[in-house]
Amino acid sequence: MAAFEARRRVTRLLLLVVVVLVVSEFILSAESKYMQYNTTSGLVAGKLNVHLVPHTHDDVGWLKTVDQYYVGSNNSIQGACVQNVLDSLVPALLADKNRKFIYVEQAFFQRWWREQSEGTQNIVKQLVNDGQLELINGGMCMHDEAATHYIDMIDQTTLGHRFIKHEFNVTPRIGWQIDPFGHSAVQAYLLGAEVGFDSLFFARIDYQDRAKRMGDKSLEVVWRGSKSLGSSAQIFTDAFPKNYEPPSDNFYFEVDDPSPIVQDDTFLFDYNVPDRVNDFVSAAMSQANITRTNHIMWTMGTDFKYQYANTWFRQMDKFIHYVNQDGRVNALYSTPSIYTDAKYAANESWPIKTDDFFPYADIVNAYWTGYFTSRPAIKGYVRTLSGYYMAARQLEFFKGLNKSGPNTDSLADALAIAQHHDAVSGTEKQHVAYDYAKRLSIGYTEAEQVVAESLACLTETKSEAGCKSSSTKFQQCPLLNISYCPPSEADLSNGKTLVIVVYNALGWKREDIVKIPVFSANVTVRDYTGKEIESQILPLLNASVGLRNNYVKAYLGVSPSVTPSYWLAFSATVPPLGFSTYTVSSATRTATTSERQTAYKSETSQNDTIEVGPGKLKLVYSGNDGKLTQYINTGSLVTKSIQQAFSYYPGDDGDHGSADKQASGAYIFRPNGTVPINSEGQVSFTVLRGPLLDEVHQRINSWIYQVTRLYKEKEHAEIEFTVGPIPIDDGIGKEIVTKITTGMETNKKFYTDSNGRDFIERIRDYRRDWNLEVNQPVAGNYYPINLGLYTKDNNTEFSVLVDRSVGGSSIVDGQLELMVHRRLLHDDDRGVGEALNETVCIQDGCKGLTIIGKYYLRLDPLGEGAKWRRSFGQEIYSPFLLAFTEQDEDSWKSSHVTTFSGMDPSYTLPDNVAIITLQELEDGKLLFRLAHLYEIDEDKELSVIASVELKKVFADKKIRKVTEMSLSANQERAEMEKKRLVWKAEGSSEGEAKVLRGGPVDPTKLVVELAPMEIRTLIIDF
Amino acid sequence: MAAFEARRRVTRLLLLVVVVLVVSEFILSAESKYMQYNTTSGLVAGKLNVHLVPHTHDDVGWLKTVDQYYVGSNNSIQGACVQNVLDSLVPALLADKNRKFIYVEQAFFQRWWREQSEGTQNIVKQLVNDGQLELINGGMCMHDEAATHYIDMIDQTTLGHRFIKHEFNVTPRIGWQIDPFGHSAVQAYLLGAEVGFDSLFFARIDYQDRAKRMGDKSLEVVWRGSKSLGSSAQIFTDAFPKNYEPPSDNFYFEVDDPSPIVQDDTFLFDYNVPDRVNDFVSAAMSQANITRTNHIMWTMGTDFKYQYANTWFRQMDKFIHYVNQDGRVNALYSTPSIYTDAKYAANESWPIKTDDFFPYADIVNAYWTGYFTSRPAIKGYVRTLSGYYMAARQLEFFKGLNKSGPNTDSLADALAIAQHHDAVSGTEKQHVAYDYAKRLSIGYTEAEQVVAESLACLTETKSEAGCKSSSTKFQQCPLLNISYCPPSEADLSNGKTLVIVVYNALGWKREDIVKIPVFSANVTVRDYTGKEIESQILPLLNASVGLRNNYVKAYLGVSPSVTPSYWLAFSATVPPLGFSTYTVSSATRTATTSERQTAYKSETSQNDTIEVGPGKLKLVYSGNDGKLTQYINTGSLVTKSIQQAFSYYPGDDGDHGSADKQASGAYIFRPNGTVPINSEGQVSFTVLRGPLLDEVHQRINSWIYQVTRLYKEKEHAEIEFTVGPIPIDDGIGKEIVTKITTGMETNKKFYTDSNGRDFIERIRDYRRDWNLEVNQPVAGNYYPINLGLYTKDNNTEFSVLVDRSVGGSSIVDGQLELMVHRRLLHDDDRGVGEALNETVCIQDGCKGLTIIGKYYLRLDPLGEGAKWRRSFGQEIYSPFLLAFTEQDEDSWKSSHVTTFSGMDPSYTLPDNVAIITLQELEDGKLLFRLAHLYEIDEDKELSVIASVELKKVFADKKIRKVTEMSLSANQERAEMEKKRLVWKAEGSSEGEAKVLRGGPVDPTKLVVELAPMEIRTLIIDF
Repeated sequence: MAAFEARRRVTRLLLLVVVVLVVSEFILSAESKYMQYNTTSGLVAGKLNVHLVPHTHDDVGWLKTVDQYYVGSNNSIQGACVQNVLDSLVPALLADKNRKFIYVEQAFFQRWWREQSEGTQNIVKQLVNDGQLELINGGMCMHDEAATHYIDMIDQTTLGHRFIKHEFNVTPRIGWQIDPFGHSAVQAYLLGAEVGFDSLFFARIDYQDRAKRMGDKSLEVVWRGSKSLGSSAQIFTDAFPKNYEPPSDNFYFEVDDPSPIVQDDTFLFDYNVPDRVNDFVSAAMSQANITRTNHIMWTMGTDFKYQYANTWFRQMDKFIHYVNQDGRVNALYSTPSIYTDAKYAANESWPIKTDDFFPYADIVNAYWTGYFTSRPAIKGYVRTLSGYYMAARQLEFFKGLNKSGPNTDSLADALAIAQHHDAVSGTEKQHVAYDYAKRLSIGYTEAEQVVAESLACLTETKSEAGCKSSSTKFQQCPLLNISYCPPSEADLSNGKTLVIVVYNALGWKREDIVKIPVFSANVTVRDYTGKEIESQILPLLNASVGLRNNYVKAYLGVSPSVTPSYWLAFSATVPPLGFSTYTVSSATRTATTSERQTAYKSETSQNDTIEVGPGKLKLVYSGNDGKLTQYINTGSLVTKSIQQAFSYYPGDDGDHGSADKQASGAYIFRPNGTVPINSEGQVSFTVLRGPLLDEVHQRINSWIYQVTRLYKEKEHAEIEFTVGPIPIDDGIGKEIVTKITTGMETNKKFYTDSNGRDFIERIRDYRRDWNLEVNQPVAGNYYPINLGLYTKDNNTEFSVLVDRSVGGSSIVDGQLELMVHRRLLHDDDRGVGEALNETVCIQDGCKGLTIIGKYYLRLDPLGEGAKWRRSFGQEIYSPFLLAFTEQDEDSWKSSHVTTFSGMDPSYTLPDNVAIITLQELEDGKLLFRLAHLYEIDEDKELSVIASVELKKVFADKKIRKVTEMSLSANQERAEMEKKRLVWKAEGSSEGEAKVLRGGPVDPTKLVVELAPMEIRTLIIDF
Repeated sequence: MAAFEARRRVTRLLLLVVVVLVVSEFILSAESKYMQYNTTSGLVAGKLNVHLVPHTHDDVGWLKTVDQYYVGSNNSIQGACVQNVLDSLVPALLADKNRKFIYVEQAFFQRWWREQSEGTQNIVKQLVNDGQLELINGGMCMHDEAATHYIDMIDQTTLGHRFIKHEFNVTPRIGWQIDPFGHSAVQAYLLGAEVGFDSLFFARIDYQDRAKRMGDKSLEVVWRGSKSLGSSAQIFTDAFPKNYEPPSDNFYFEVDDPSPIVQDDTFLFDYNVPDRVNDFVSAAMSQANITRTNHIMWTMGTDFKYQYANTWFRQMDKFIHYVNQDGRVNALYSTPSIYTDAKYAANESWPIKTDDFFPYADIVNAYWTGYFTSRPAIKGYVRTLSGYYMAARQLEFFKGLNKSGPNTDSLADALAIAQHHDAVSGTEKQHVAYDYAKRLSIGYTEAEQVVAESLACLTETKSEAGCKSSSTKFQQCPLLNISYCPPSEADLSNGKTLVIVVYNALGWKREDIVKIPVFSANVTVRDYTGKEIESQILPLLNASVGLRNNYVKAYLGVSPSVTPSYWLAFSATVPPLGFSTYTVSSATRTATTSERQTAYKSETSQNDTIEVGPGKLKLVYSGNDGKLTQYINTGSLVTKSIQQAFSYYPGDDGDHGSADKQASGAYIFRPNGTVPINSEGQVSFTVLRGPLLDEVHQRINSWIYQVTRLYKEKEHAEIEFTVGPIPIDDGIGKEIVTKITTGMETNKKFYTDSNGRDFIERIRDYRRDWNLEVNQPVAGNYYPINLGLYTKDNNTEFSVLVDRSVGGSSIVDGQLELMVHRRLLHDDDRGVGEALNETVCIQDGCKGLTIIGKYYLRLDPLGEGAKWRRSFGQEIYSPFLLAFTEQDEDSWKSSHVTTFSGMDPSYTLPDNVAIITLQELEDGKLLFRLAHLYEIDEDKELSVIASVELKKVFADKKIRKVTEMSLSANQERAEMEKKRLVWKAEGSSEGEAKVLRGGPVDPTKLVVELAPMEIRTLIIDF
């Protein structure tokens, strides 16, 4: 090795100067025939230009895990190795400078990049610089567009874009969402236009929509995804005429692919150049017939292709050479950027597209609306960690980024990967779902340490610099959702006090109920001033205990040593971006104990009606059958008859003869009827009442349990469902929905959010873009829900907000429904090759997965629902972050900070603005994103320009410079706007209302303005 | 393109100096990880050395044609592209100078080489020079060893070896016959030792043999294939313990292969280095247990692998690195040469192996003895063209090699490719068989022009130099076997004369019957002096006419315009390496006509016996049923009772339950019983008698016709069978045999030739090397026949010679049988995926293929059969070459040379020597091979040293220099002998009889001595 190394060093001197030239020369010779192919063709005016876009579509996990795809293991499941693609690509590009390639998924690219020598990295930089290798889309993955939250989409895109900027000093120009199963408005305007993309490409749109667009040449449009931002955030969009593969079956050139190669060696038999040129021209002509301008794009590749890149380029070289010799059309190596520029140069006016491309059906009876709910546990985990990640990064900033030791990067990475369109979508194989969960768990565990260290630091009074040595060890409770929290379950009878730091990641002061399991009911809660505060003890009922013990065993491999008997609830008030400390200690005095015992009572009643609710909101239940009957808000005076019930859709088994084998599965929702779920036998109905909250416990049947909570200080109902194991012993898969029914006349209309951001009007059995032929009256009306959905009549708005991504609809006027869980027994034939049948195993036994989830419902007078949806939506996304430590109460209080705000104590963010990113970058600068929470016209008061005073947000820091960036923070906003292509849209008039946007940030005032739906991304230099 | 070209030129200057260093540096970086693998390991004494031999096995046609395999078309049949292999190999080898690869099949390599730029060629030359790329075996293909004639084996090997010598100045050291289905003695001693190989490797030996050899560690042996040449032509031979693939299922690393890769990236999940190292060590230990010395070889590759070579090398790099870190065994990149040298250095004594490795069974009931006969038409075509090619090259030399215009190279190439072990073997798919036939036909057509031009030149009297302008157009009759010969069928009543040039490629003067179809019986034949000679007219019977017309239509696409009514036979006498001219002209005089009419008579008789034969040999038939009963040679006085009959083996359909599904197929002969073929109804039996020959015509049944010919001047019987279409309407495939039965007591012994050269003793139901467990008493006793087979008792030898490769045996004492045709309905599951069911199609109708073939039989007194077998064997291989032209007889004779010999008119080669190569090389030198035709002790008089006087052979040339070469003419013989490794053999005594060899060629005397079975290869400089 030594001699070898020496030679390397010597040659490196030569290398620096001549490597690129010489290497490309060598490879050229090595690959080239005696025959030299002319691939120099550029665009030719007056001819049909066939843009050959070499690409590979590399799922960041699907049938195999992301790592397995990268290294090429587990090939018995799928032959795929991304390392091969990138390894073989470099020499293939060097071999001919006209060859081009796009690479998309940064999760793979970064794995590869890390392994490369500096020499290779330099070569690749040159390839990127020369435009031979274009990094497009540029996020860590090609994220899903239905089950993703916009903050996650931004984060994962930023992660990729900043890497690309850092390594290559380039900014991706192209949105390339070719595979996701439907396309969201937020993708178009926010993750498209607002990151500076000039165009957006994808393959999957409804088959009816596609047919119509092929007919009127409207596959290419200008998409204005945002009502509020309109033409200021529009993007040129190309929906492919078929899929993201070569134009027909005989243009695939992977190793061993059966497409006929171009055999141009006259020394050998089977010379076929004329045939192949004819094939090419004929495919081009077909596509030209449905495309405006004389530019068409061929996506030359598909999933995990180019494992030996040379095989494709060799054939494309020949096609370009011989097709251009033929002369009927012009073939060229291209990229979506070149194609976009050519389209732009054509100076065409394009049809306008608004709203989105949901839902997606690829054929009749095949609506890809099942995946809106598939794998609700992973969807919940992703959403929980998304909020946690935001908070953790705030705390990481407050403490200062660790130079070494734990940080939030692995959580960032895990979350980024989990946004992939076969990850959070729930359409991956089971072992891959476990891999995502494992990554998230590892990322969480590291972030948990960051949070604990930061809180230890921030609660330390002494010094600012010395907090690293803080001895306080904070514990957290990621399994609180299954009533498992070892630190709060501690036996405090030894005199120790449980210190709970309650962190609020929102920019507003906030009051909320904290609820933790405790061992004993004899406890006292004190606030950060030491004042005893009201608390409420609730029993930990059997349903929860069983689930808790089983799942702790399943997840941690051990059984909990103790079982707490109670929930302790108290109200916490916490400043913006800050914390308050509460303590729980043992109370031995009997009087106190007895007061607390009255904190709850339970009843099961046969009376006429049971009214529940300690505050303004009352829910009325039938005493007869325990069913919800009425909603009464004594404050807003909204009163509505209301019912709630579960039902299930039997999953279609696809047994409809040879022509229709479509089953319901991980992707596709195909119900075979609707079955109401009625309570079995004696209804279990328990009401727990107390000063802070009332709970209604309903055991619907052996596998559905429901708790409805009404808080004294809240005007919404919180419904927690526990669903599962879904029974399948009848051989039928089931998709479980909860339906909330009011008598409202909603006229087929309802509203669902786009990735948790804009609300889009939906009309049952109707599409704006074409005449819908209804073949699936339920599945075809399902939409993805990330924040919530609502409907309205002339007086009232009825809103439901969710804790994770789910599918939802309004199948009947006045009714909203959510699909909360699915368990299916058939594969739906879209590649995953498994039935969506999630189980949890303890020792040898496996049972169907149980899901605990929450949704929140509220009725408001017409026009007043947005405030709750927007503000409380933020609270759902960012629940209080709780950290626990057992301490001696007096000494803790005396020596520690018990309340903290990252902002000026007097300051709070306006109600219509949220901080969505607050992250210290590697260089010590701050990445700061603010989001206006309202759309134009959404709320009478709040749909206006808002202002945020940076000086108050960062009261204790000196701001040196504020730079506004593109959404993904990879270029200055001004530069981005300067480069932006301005597309002409059909029927777009000059006199359109000017779009509202916040003005530039004055460097002295440092006030950031935000117009409705605006998100502004700043890099702040302190 | 212009600018681009300019850049190329500029960079080429730099290139010349630094390309190899820099490129290897680059590729190293490009392929390598941040992790650098240590692959420098050489051999380590005292450790088990695991020689990783990266290789690809590329069939020169099998499921796809050779060109399809090369370019990677027709991948739906088989994913295979040799161009990928070689393209991707170069950078993979450059990336790490320790990596090695062997390449075998020159047919592919030359296709690739031709397409490479000079730059790449230089790099590859360097790789070969450095030993990274080793070209082994080195023939155009890995020839079959059963169905091939030794002259074809030599020719195709020479073609490859001389190319390698010319381009790379290297000589292959290794025989690498890994796939052929059994191994011949001639391969070992002649195509192994005599071409200078130091070792021979292969995979396929009988499963019982292998088991025994694994038990006693005798898979590696010293093989002495030749009784005559003994230890002077021995070779170290390694039969692999399993196959030619990696040691177990989990070491395959082609793109998409499912073997676990070595995952050594600790940043990723599924790190598995310890597991994989254990897998490696454990596989190595298993192999070490059955192998002598501490060297084992792993064949890292298989059919058409390394399409992206990097995938294999990447994993092998890691294995070498981590296994050597582990230290239990030593892994290294190796080649069979390195392995051979290591074995040699171990100074071990190896077991001796004699005779050969036929027949081959891979499992019980699966004898690969069907392919000895499969596709008899292609086997016949190959043999016919092999003889033609030898003659054509002689004539090409006599005229002088064309600088441009037709030559014999494409026939050489087609013949070379046809020797592949899935070509002449008959185990290829039908479309591939057509491809071989097409290549042969194209090659023949070009060679036919060479022959015609040469004869035109040689028959020209005027000048020696000006013969290029000869206006004589000679026609030839490649379809004479189906009675189709347009030039001889001409109507000569217009007064023209048919001139027939009869060329004799043998080194002896020779007399033989010429037989051509003629339009009229009224013809006169004159010899080259103008003297009328005896001729004989035979009728062209219906059986021949039907076949003729059908097959001419099938092959040429047109129906013959005339149908000749007669065969004209006359005796021609031709000098060695020369020709005589005969003329046929119309005879109008009645008297002459009537004489000629008596030239034949036909009879069908019910008499007791019918004796046939115009010369010494008489065959006696039963007058009752027309069956052969007796053989009488009135000269040698050998008289034997003899019977001949057809029967068929029903091809087993493989329906023996799940454990035994072995059917009879292209490879495998598995008879399901034996069925005698009896004549149907009235026996058709016709005898034609004449002065030159008698013919016995027998219609055995509707699909078997047989003609037996007895020539006045010959003491053997010629039997021409016409078999087909084999009926399959009973759903049963059939394998047709002819059995000739004598009453001889042959004691289970018979003798079959090895590739037409040495005869090897066979003992029924017995193997010398192990205790045979007999499970297929017929198929397991079949052997390949190229020249013939014989058996003997105490008084008599009974010999049968064949016109092509067939399978044959002696299943019953005194009986010899040949399998002459096979038509089967099941695939035998060895990969070809087709039933061997050859058909011929005319317009829309297809019928089973009909085969016309000949064999020759003779009985001799004990010890006297060899002379006929050897001498007449040469005549079968080199029949008279006939060329026709229509001329005015008188003017032709007066102005043309009518007889010619290439040698001194007074000289003839000794009876025991044949010229097997006489070929002008590109540089004007002559490649000349002489073969002694007898084995030691084979004939009392002729198994002695023979001498050939070169001065007389080349009487009209001045010999400047004679250089003796290795058999494949790629190195001087002396140099080869100097380098040869001398292996120690177990039980080999110092005092072994000295092997007889001819002495050096004295440069003045120029006499070449040949010892029994010796072949000497000379390059002669004139």
